[in-house]
Amino acid sequence: MAETPPDARRRNECARNAILDATVSLIGEVGYANVSIEAIARRAGVGKQTIYRWWPSKGAVVLDAATRSLDPVVLLPDTGDFLDDVRAQLKGIVERIADTGFGAAYRGVIAAGQSDDTLLEAVFDRIIEPNVGAFVARAARARDRDEIRADADVETLADVLYGFVEFRLLHALPVDPRHIDALVELAFRGVR
Amino acid sequence: MAETPPDARRRNECARNAILDATVSLIGEVGYANVSIEAIARRAGVGKQTIYRWWPSKGAVVLDAATRSLDPVVLLPDTGDFLDDVRAQLKGIVERIADTGFGAAYRGVIAAGQSDDTLLEAVFDRIIEPNVGAFVARAARARDRDEIRADADVETLADVLYGFVEFRLLHALPVDPRHIDALVELAFRGVR
Repeated sequence: MAETPPDARRRNECARNAILDATVSLIGEVGYANVSIEAIARRAGVGKQTIYRWWPSKGAVVLDAATRSLDPVVLLPDTGDFLDDVRAQLKGIVERIADTGFGAAYRGVIAAGQSDDTLLEAVFDRIIEPNVGAFVARAARARDRDEIRADADVETLADVLYGFVEFRLLHALPVDPRHIDALVELAFRGVR
Repeated sequence: MAETPPDARRRNECARNAILDATVSLIGEVGYANVSIEAIARRAGVGKQTIYRWWPSKGAVVLDAATRSLDPVVLLPDTGDFLDDVRAQLKGIVERIADTGFGAAYRGVIAAGQSDDTLLEAVFDRIIEPNVGAFVARAARARDRDEIRADADVETLADVLYGFVEFRLLHALPVDPRHIDALVELAFRGVR
């Protein structure tokens, strides 16, 4: 395969970023169902064929856009206090939902994924799995340090925490730092 | 308004049930996105216009079908043991997901609701709210009987429990009685 010259590489990278930015902002403005590839191309200042060269469908562009807009907060920190770290990550996610198009983009790919198995699997592999994987690894260290019980079920804990945020997002219910505090308190302390 | 004669009422009721049954079974077979009003009418043995007389859209029929297929398990029992009752209700819901078209119908209305506010609100009012309302009332009695702590946050508990089931359903992850046991254990006991 011929190597892409550096200038063309930079141009491609730039067009790619413009397309993903345009996708997130358009979905935030008009909702997933009302965004077309044409509108994304127009907003990004590229031709429709540029988008179709890189992505097979609207769902695929939106998934890349959603994944990228979540990137800076995906990492669960390790300050030595598991509760604080979990709270910080979840608050980072709800901030992204409030301040960027991530929430709308995520709702869009989940909706489209209900009738597109490949897209739904991609959402899982690209967004859910890396988060849950990092969470379970971090939780194992917390268990070693006795921050959580030795028999704590960390897979279920991950689904409880991320599932709560997704549930409120998909039902268009508010989700803010106050909800995260209540969630983490409940998940760690229980109700009994 | 003229009263509907008893025979016509019975006929209407019968057609209505046939339409809702056809909707749930078709969605289970081909998925929400691939079901048309035409196909529902054909399967139910009624005319398309009969469906449009009673429902404004596919989303509305599917919501009625989903609500009806969940009906028998919506009620949270009160045997005096809150944990057992919560487990029983959640296991009833996951059984419905496994054995009937409820899961597919629910996934369909949630997907459609992401770009249809009225439908999303209707899902909340018809399915989520009655469940959460009954849950909170039942939890208050459990609190009075010291089954859960006086300061337990029962609204957050409800979102954690139902959110977990919805999260696994929408990501096409298995959800069976074993998951419910792990969930209830975690929610009641915490991980600390």
